[in-house]
Amino acid sequence: MDYPSKVLAKAVDEISGLPGIGKKSALRLALHLLKQPESQAIALGDSLKKLVTDIKYCKNCHNFSDAEICEICDNPKRTEELLCVVEDVRDVMAIENTGKFRGKYLVLGGKISPMEGIGPNKLNISSIEKKLENGIVKELIFALSATMEGDTTAYYIYKKFKSSPVRFSTIARGISVGDELEYADEISLGRSIQNRLPYNEKD
Amino acid sequence: MDYPSKVLAKAVDEISGLPGIGKKSALRLALHLLKQPESQAIALGDSLKKLVTDIKYCKNCHNFSDAEICEICDNPKRTEELLCVVEDVRDVMAIENTGKFRGKYLVLGGKISPMEGIGPNKLNISSIEKKLENGIVKELIFALSATMEGDTTAYYIYKKFKSSPVRFSTIARGISVGDELEYADEISLGRSIQNRLPYNEKD
Ligand SMILES: [Zn+2]
Ligand SMILES: [Zn+2]
Repeated sequence: MDYPSKVLAKAVDEISGLPGIGKKSALRLALHLLKQPESQAIALGDSLKKLVTDIKYCKNCHNFSDAEICEICDNPKRTEELLCVVEDVRDVMAIENTGKFRGKYLVLGGKISPMEGIGPNKLNISSIEKKLENGIVKELIFALSATMEGDTTAYYIYKKFKSSPVRFSTIARGISVGDELEYADEISLGRSIQNRLPYNEKD
Repeated sequence: MDYPSKVLAKAVDEISGLPGIGKKSALRLALHLLKQPESQAIALGDSLKKLVTDIKYCKNCHNFSDAEICEICDNPKRTEELLCVVEDVRDVMAIENTGKFRGKYLVLGGKISPMEGIGPNKLNISSIEKKLENGIVKELIFALSATMEGDTTAYYIYKKFKSSPVRFSTIARGISVGDELEYADEISLGRSIQNRLPYNEKD
């Protein structure tokens, strides 16, 4: 399609670089913004830029944070004895949303996936090691997707740390096999973290 | 949902202000941008801001333009005798895309809609008057949506200018009644502008 204006063409091009947004939807969004007060697009543009330049990660658990240490790590009311290992910050938000977990998290930043060339060295596994060093963590809970990659990741971490005195568990598979964790509804997810099971490498 | 970071919360909030994008999709888009090189979100943010601050409208036809007068108005190979009246810049793009029309356009900037409080005074109807003054336009083609608002708008313009020597026509309703013009496929739309009919107030 030919665009009557270069700034419009550029905006459509950039918007359609987002996943799930084609050229036609991008054009609709651009034209929508042009119908609103200028301030809306300016605020949106600024907050997208700030998002990537100003976001910080917790040095401890790799969750997003506004400070060096995130609010969850910094909360003395949450027990250090439970460490919930998740793939992604989205999973922290999903579990927090259930209100059923009062321990701490460790965000791996992905899962082992030979298909996508993601090996254990790309994940925050050394941070787990640091967490387990002082013996405060009593239970390491895998809250990973019920997929092959999720299983491989849990198995790798289990093997690496099975000699440490920590207990391993995994969230109950209330969510169907093959499901991504983040799509699970709050109730199932809350129940599955309460009914977590001891981790068993033969599962 | 609680967000672990204020910049993330703000970005999600701004993104979900766009039509058709809920909080969940907005979060996915924000997290996607955080996984890409920073430059992508910065380029997107900048081009959204530029879109609203730098866009220009043709003084003649109200289409988007990079100059005072748009490329279509400025093209001597296109006949001044045919004036195609459309609601929106999207419709200009849609018709241009068919490659079947070699006249000029007039972008109304909307359609008469008592429901949404849009009266004729909010549309670029005075620009039609200016176009018809010098007698060069021989045919005024309504390329409006096949909806009640589209019909009302055509009728209003017809009544206002019917004493002028111009001929009125409307694009063939190859598109089903009730359809928005912009959703019509290229072939139907191209055919309907070629097979346009004399405008008849009783239709
Ligand atoms: Zn933290
Ligand atoms: Zn023009």
